[in-house]
Amino acid sequence: MSAIYYGVAYYDEYMPEDRLAADISMMKDAGINIVRIAESTWSTLEPQQGEYCFYHIDRVLDAMHEAGIAVIIGTPTYAIPSWLARKHPEVMVTTLKGKEKYGRRQIMDIVSPVFLRYAENIIRVLLEHVHKHPAIVGYQLDNETKHYDNVGPVMQQKFIAHLRERYPDLHQLNKDFGLDYWSNRIDHWEDFPPVENTINASLGCAFSTFQRQTVTDYLAWQSQIVKEYARPEQFITHNFDFEWRGYSYGVQPRVDHFSAAKALTVAGVDIYHPSQEQLTGREISFGGDIARALKQGAGYFVLETEAQGFAQWTPFPGQLRLQAFSHIASGARMVSYWHWHSIHNSFETYWKGLLSHDFSPNPTYLEAKTIGAELATLSDYLEDMKIDNEVAILVSNEAMDAFNWFKPGDAQSNVYNNVFRRFYDALYDSNISVDIINDVNSDTSRYKAIVVPALYAASDALLQRINHYVESGGHALISFKSGFSDENVKVRTQSQPGVIKACCRVSYSQFVLPQDVGLTSQVGDFTLADDERAELWMELLTPDDADKVQVLARYQHPVWGKYAAITESQYGKGSAIYIGCLSSKPVISQLVKRLTQKGSLASCHTAHSFPIIVKKALGRAGKTLTFFFNYSLEPQQITAPENSVCLLGNAPASSNGHQPIEPWGVRVYQSEVESPK
Amino acid sequence: MSAIYYGVAYYDEYMPEDRLAADISMMKDAGINIVRIAESTWSTLEPQQGEYCFYHIDRVLDAMHEAGIAVIIGTPTYAIPSWLARKHPEVMVTTLKGKEKYGRRQIMDIVSPVFLRYAENIIRVLLEHVHKHPAIVGYQLDNETKHYDNVGPVMQQKFIAHLRERYPDLHQLNKDFGLDYWSNRIDHWEDFPPVENTINASLGCAFSTFQRQTVTDYLAWQSQIVKEYARPEQFITHNFDFEWRGYSYGVQPRVDHFSAAKALTVAGVDIYHPSQEQLTGREISFGGDIARALKQGAGYFVLETEAQGFAQWTPFPGQLRLQAFSHIASGARMVSYWHWHSIHNSFETYWKGLLSHDFSPNPTYLEAKTIGAELATLSDYLEDMKIDNEVAILVSNEAMDAFNWFKPGDAQSNVYNNVFRRFYDALYDSNISVDIINDVNSDTSRYKAIVVPALYAASDALLQRINHYVESGGHALISFKSGFSDENVKVRTQSQPGVIKACCRVSYSQFVLPQDVGLTSQVGDFTLADDERAELWMELLTPDDADKVQVLARYQHPVWGKYAAITESQYGKGSAIYIGCLSSKPVISQLVKRLTQKGSLASCHTAHSFPIIVKKALGRAGKTLTFFFNYSLEPQQITAPENSVCLLGNAPASSNGHQPIEPWGVRVYQSEVESPK
Amino acid sequence: MSAIYYGVAYYDEYMPEDRLAADISMMKDAGINIVRIAESTWSTLEPQQGEYCFYHIDRVLDAMHEAGIAVIIGTPTYAIPSWLARKHPEVMVTTLKGKEKYGRRQIMDIVSPVFLRYAENIIRVLLEHVHKHPAIVGYQLDNETKHYDNVGPVMQQKFIAHLRERYPDLHQLNKDFGLDYWSNRIDHWEDFPPVENTINASLGCAFSTFQRQTVTDYLAWQSQIVKEYARPEQFITHNFDFEWRGYSYGVQPRVDHFSAAKALTVAGVDIYHPSQEQLTGREISFGGDIARALKQGAGYFVLETEAQGFAQWTPFPGQLRLQAFSHIASGARMVSYWHWHSIHNSFETYWKGLLSHDFSPNPTYLEAKTIGAELATLSDYLEDMKIDNEVAILVSNEAMDAFNWFKPGDAQSNVYNNVFRRFYDALYDSNISVDIINDVNSDTSRYKAIVVPALYAASDALLQRINHYVESGGHALISFKSGFSDENVKVRTQSQPGVIKACCRVSYSQFVLPQDVGLTSQVGDFTLADDERAELWMELLTPDDADKVQVLARYQHPVWGKYAAITESQYGKGSAIYIGCLSSKPVISQLVKRLTQKGSLASCHTAHSFPIIVKKALGRAGKTLTFFFNYSLEPQQITAPENSVCLLGNAPASSNGHQPIEPWGVRVYQSEVESPK
Repeated sequence: MSAIYYGVAYYDEYMPEDRLAADISMMKDAGINIVRIAESTWSTLEPQQGEYCFYHIDRVLDAMHEAGIAVIIGTPTYAIPSWLARKHPEVMVTTLKGKEKYGRRQIMDIVSPVFLRYAENIIRVLLEHVHKHPAIVGYQLDNETKHYDNVGPVMQQKFIAHLRERYPDLHQLNKDFGLDYWSNRIDHWEDFPPVENTINASLGCAFSTFQRQTVTDYLAWQSQIVKEYARPEQFITHNFDFEWRGYSYGVQPRVDHFSAAKALTVAGVDIYHPSQEQLTGREISFGGDIARALKQGAGYFVLETEAQGFAQWTPFPGQLRLQAFSHIASGARMVSYWHWHSIHNSFETYWKGLLSHDFSPNPTYLEAKTIGAELATLSDYLEDMKIDNEVAILVSNEAMDAFNWFKPGDAQSNVYNNVFRRFYDALYDSNISVDIINDVNSDTSRYKAIVVPALYAASDALLQRINHYVESGGHALISFKSGFSDENVKVRTQSQPGVIKACCRVSYSQFVLPQDVGLTSQVGDFTLADDERAELWMELLTPDDADKVQVLARYQHPVWGKYAAITESQYGKGSAIYIGCLSSKPVISQLVKRLTQKGSLASCHTAHSFPIIVKKALGRAGKTLTFFFNYSLEPQQITAPENSVCLLGNAPASSNGHQPIEPWGVRVYQSEVESPK
Repeated sequence: MSAIYYGVAYYDEYMPEDRLAADISMMKDAGINIVRIAESTWSTLEPQQGEYCFYHIDRVLDAMHEAGIAVIIGTPTYAIPSWLARKHPEVMVTTLKGKEKYGRRQIMDIVSPVFLRYAENIIRVLLEHVHKHPAIVGYQLDNETKHYDNVGPVMQQKFIAHLRERYPDLHQLNKDFGLDYWSNRIDHWEDFPPVENTINASLGCAFSTFQRQTVTDYLAWQSQIVKEYARPEQFITHNFDFEWRGYSYGVQPRVDHFSAAKALTVAGVDIYHPSQEQLTGREISFGGDIARALKQGAGYFVLETEAQGFAQWTPFPGQLRLQAFSHIASGARMVSYWHWHSIHNSFETYWKGLLSHDFSPNPTYLEAKTIGAELATLSDYLEDMKIDNEVAILVSNEAMDAFNWFKPGDAQSNVYNNVFRRFYDALYDSNISVDIINDVNSDTSRYKAIVVPALYAASDALLQRINHYVESGGHALISFKSGFSDENVKVRTQSQPGVIKACCRVSYSQFVLPQDVGLTSQVGDFTLADDERAELWMELLTPDDADKVQVLARYQHPVWGKYAAITESQYGKGSAIYIGCLSSKPVISQLVKRLTQKGSLASCHTAHSFPIIVKKALGRAGKTLTFFFNYSLEPQQITAPENSVCLLGNAPASSNGHQPIEPWGVRVYQSEVESPK
Repeated sequence: MSAIYYGVAYYDEYMPEDRLAADISMMKDAGINIVRIAESTWSTLEPQQGEYCFYHIDRVLDAMHEAGIAVIIGTPTYAIPSWLARKHPEVMVTTLKGKEKYGRRQIMDIVSPVFLRYAENIIRVLLEHVHKHPAIVGYQLDNETKHYDNVGPVMQQKFIAHLRERYPDLHQLNKDFGLDYWSNRIDHWEDFPPVENTINASLGCAFSTFQRQTVTDYLAWQSQIVKEYARPEQFITHNFDFEWRGYSYGVQPRVDHFSAAKALTVAGVDIYHPSQEQLTGREISFGGDIARALKQGAGYFVLETEAQGFAQWTPFPGQLRLQAFSHIASGARMVSYWHWHSIHNSFETYWKGLLSHDFSPNPTYLEAKTIGAELATLSDYLEDMKIDNEVAILVSNEAMDAFNWFKPGDAQSNVYNNVFRRFYDALYDSNISVDIINDVNSDTSRYKAIVVPALYAASDALLQRINHYVESGGHALISFKSGFSDENVKVRTQSQPGVIKACCRVSYSQFVLPQDVGLTSQVGDFTLADDERAELWMELLTPDDADKVQVLARYQHPVWGKYAAITESQYGKGSAIYIGCLSSKPVISQLVKRLTQKGSLASCHTAHSFPIIVKKALGRAGKTLTFFFNYSLEPQQITAPENSVCLLGNAPASSNGHQPIEPWGVRVYQSEVESPK
């Protein structure tokens, strides 16, 4: 595998004129060394059932190979041809809105045996045709696969079969899910009603988990097929995406990335983010942290990110470069643009590629040329780069589902991701680099601290492992709502926060919605600005044991002022901070720093904070790589690491101390000696 | 019947563990003397068609009886089991959105013969089993029954049959409803189209009235069945609810409470209201006034009200008690919480009961203990309490429907209830206690004044009865839009306000929407603040007879300033104020006071106004009971009635003059002598 | 044809009582000389299939004829009777929301052969019965016909047949429409999927164009039928409407007015507009300019406009008269109110006519009496009035569809019409009267300048004709987005703005969304206020040739400041201003005046601007008519034209110089000598 891939998605099929030679020439100029093809071209490959056309695939593979550009082949299954929809209407997914109509991509029923039969055929036909081609370095399974909110009959039957296996005794299901409520009790499996309109969160969340499982199964099934053709050195990846908020952010509700990634050899993601004045790097860092987590910290592919993108994303000068090195600093081994050229018809006409519709050099393309050259230069230094963070943040699809069933007050959208983001951004802005984890177990002990936002639904076992992590010397920042219900979204009958009362040493049985409620510090070494507010949710906390738990803050309120808002406990060799409300980013980052012994965190660069972002990694020969990014329109100052050489940036290579960094600027330093581990 | 019931809804079926003995013990501690059970447990009672399980019912009845706690049995028909939905999909209601899917409660077609057959069976099976049990003091029919927006085929057929009976001559229907418009004319009954998409308000409102009639019929049908089993001393009630705005407020559009209540022996309601800083007592008072009206002023049951409720409702200390006595002061004979415990699964997990999910005492439960004890103490004083108001406010489901078809400008939601609420709240805040009436007839003469908001659709006969009421010496405050159309929602061809021009002596043929239009007083004894504004609607009024009608206010507008906004007429022995626009609460309460001879109203406590609320009633031995409530977070002053004893509250029992009342405080005084009638 | 028609719509069918004689008497008093009947009365005419009732038609025709009032007969096809919907459910239109249910008007499938059969029958039955009646002066086809968002099976089959004819080679269709994208490629016509959910703008826009074609075809078909009965002197018209925004404004997306009008002998429109403080005349002027364009500048009918209308439209004194003469000044030969009386039932109860529901004289009716008298007086002067403007503005349904597929950022609603309106209003407010054109061709050379807003989709040929217009000495103001895609909504592969780069001499390949971006003038004779902002869209323009193109303004932005925002080029004998963003009305009117040699435009009345609106026309004997309108609540000053007589208004008839004009006032002057052409 090349040290760093710099790539684009390429669609010869969509070209209004023959561009192949000219495009390859421009790619070479820009240092593009990989292209991704074929993932949405089923109708071109198989224009009629059983009739195949390899014209575009063949000519692109040959031309790329000749040019020394590697190729990723995507299985073409995420957009179906019209003949399939006409012949087999049952392949269209059924959602709460009814059966999808032909038009968009990603409207198929991925558990339909008919769809799977046709999909398998086209995958095999394509791979049989291309798999010996030397240009191919790897395969992408499908694209941005999700369950597409499938509530169709096959999905429901499979779900019931799954429940039946899990619950040989239906009475236990009724009890665990609380189905007696509102006469939802089910006494015969035959009576199991369609679940799409259920008002039972336990049932709804179980269905959601099952829907995600079908994505995992689908990708594993594709992976098995591809493995029959792939050579050992070829990777198998997938392009995971995130919650879509007009850009990529947040844990994906419709896929369990962690289980789905087991079918892959390299994790891949797409990351689209606000740009121009709104470019912060937060989405790049978050997406990278998820992607890195999927294969145990290994490097990952950014299979798609914006070049020009939408009009509101057209990058300022310097931003494309800043973005590319931000991906690299998070551990990406590939930065690939979607897409090479801007498409002249249809839905994504304004989702612009590296080239505009006129195929001519433009400022964005010209900047890509610089990036390509710099990546080539730095490639050796980045080889086998490793990222080693001291803080982890716990995510959970199950907690998300459950929390989002019970949104506080009139909160809208994916509240779990809103809360998660507050915690994540607080750490990012303070340059506390994190790993993302989806479980707490023996591996977790390597982290100095863990952050647990809104772990609403969790098994006793997981919560006990959190207790154990703290008891063994770990430090945990745990938020409101955590521990409230079990893995079946049944609220615990203990006083709250349930099992983790053990480590947190705090309890509550009442909670309210804050209405302009402030926070007041209760201890000298914890400071709060006057305008700090409890947001979203307020648990009325009482410390359980005055000796071992300290109230850090109370609510500023005529009635609720007697309750604690934030507490800090000692438990075994560790400590736990519990926060009963959503607070501001400064409060959160102060709490994390406090947890980690007030700033001794190696990964915590107190001298810099957003808009200066610092990322560290271990590079070649154990030398530390330090990346500096200026995420602002203004020149800033940075303090270069001592005894380092500057690998990238216009500062004198050996200078120390304060140095200027230009707007949207990048610096990369390498330590002169091996870092102490 | 116990003087005052203090109760909870209790669901043994939903318990995650056996709680019965412990719960009863805690109930006894809190003075709970009644529980309401069974109303949503069909699937537990009849887990399969024809298989019955009385386990929970029996054990709760026996245990409650042993503990001396009375029981209300609810017929279990408002949530259907999954087997019924599977076996008979036709029992699911069809609304404008299509046929409902299984999941929620209240999704059945209450005119479906199939549903009625199964419902009758389970009612009979249950009552046959329990009706001899000594714990049972009464029955509740169904729960919060409504027509569920039923536009299904049975509903439509029944509606057409009903019209056919009413209109032997279809031509008359076409004429009354104006169906020639836009070719909607119907010439054969067979051509009668489905009405759910009609654009004809006359037809739409007639359908809405008919839909409400099916609720009346349904409850009457259940009542007949229950009466076959009930003992004479057992009451039959129903839990009526109101328009739902995130809380209970407003005339219920989907039920005619007045006609439906005929099937009951005691009226019951649920009243959920904003709390914390937003607790005002307005919803409690309104709900109580409706409930009291349903059985001719008799005491009523608050079958459901919040204990902790939602997070935003968690009561401040003192509020639960304030609420309980507010219900009592409006005439409630029962205050029953929904519900005892907080449910651990499903939709209403966060609609918390008296206990939190942990079943432990909490501040709200502890306050209930105080209330229970106080209610027991006061019970004798409250026996046969009577409420005798001098002002009535007229409501009309038919006027609501018609007005809401023709909302002014871009007004949203239930505008009728918005207008009604403005008038109601103006009276409430001024401590002018009211009765609610749904007709004006010979009984109405006992009121010193009536308030008529937005009586948009009304028959000539009703309007003439209003004229007659005024002519005979009554005083009426009548709002804009009143009298505009007849009972078929056909606009009158007279000049407006139609028939009531007689008593109001004002007319108009044009109206506009106010855009920052002020009001200017035209007489010395009517004062208007500078910032008073015409809201929502402006009728361009002209007095008909300068001698007998006085303009109180005109519009402040360069063009419309020549028209009257508020007029006051003399008619026969009485007077009528007509207001052509929506105005502020102070203007409305000033007008009502003016109507009732500038303050001589016995029920008008000019010394106090919101947040101090005063309610009076006739208690034992004809002695006046006076309730004071402090609906605020601040201490306030009250003036205790002379020659009274304080039955509740921490003030010296015989003191007079100014006294402090604590935040959310309650005082109850009893006069030392019988009140003059 | 009478010089000026003053009319009302009249519905004897809807009357709650017999009003005919009384109404005609009041009409005569008001100078009403025409009524429009029958257009929505199918169910009254044919209460059952094959049973006909001519009662209302006959008595109205006879009575009007006797009174000397002319009658327009509308074919009654735009609202269907319930028996037809019951008997033939297939006549109901299918939209994206499914098959329409009976209730509203305009819910039929106008391509359904069954509907057409029944419609033809009732048209023929009606016309056979009435066509010899002497009262009839003309016919109206249907009413406000549109395609009603028809996506039903017949529409789709016809569309595919149409495409098949246009594209014998399906590969060409795939290429032109870019269907390879997302596997939308179609290889057999049998596989053509339903298009309502397409994500392909080329396909979607082609379908939209086809849907409009069905309206053209439908009106042509009705016209052919009517012509079999009409006498040569009788006109055939149709009541076109515009985009509905709570009032009439903007190019109608669902009809191609220009092609549909070919079936007519006189164009007709309905124009409803804001009133009271919001009355500006802009909608009247726009609607009139469209209507005048449809038959090559000939006079047109305002078949519907508001009398009292909604409550928010009740006219201030003087406004009804102002409106009537504003229509006349734009070239209307008829001002007809919808409607005579206010309807007592159903949907449009609050869309009030000249009379209120009480049929009595009211201020609006009284004002109509004045208008009727004045129109009669002026009738001779207005005969053969001609309007001759020097500026034209180009509209395009195809550009609208395409632009609205690709709305900038989060823009909502019909953005094309928003942009169009900005340009239109800028000209209106500056008293630059315009013609509306839907093509640029040899006729266009008669205009001194043309304005081209957002011509997003256009053929090479049209763009070359624009180049040619400029080259030949014309002046063009061309906005952002113009020329971007071809007639198939395929983005051009040239650099932008594509073909019109020739005349504009400017290019760009990138664009952004403005975020508080100002504009800075680059030349001395072009001034910009400090608060001018780029709105909606920003193209990053670079002039192509410094000699022949001048940058008028740049963006005020740290990054984009180097790009031009507005440029002015010399091309051949003419010039072109290109504006890369949406700007304010003052900027636009300054640019148009600049184009037309800084103010020498004869139609540009620099001395007056909104709220004083001036319109000119050629009247009898070649004398110039000048209309002045005061669109404000304040008295204003006008400067009367020299050597003119005042035909209308209270100023001395021969006075010159400054004169006062009352709020909402009107003046009409006639020059004493023939105008120089």
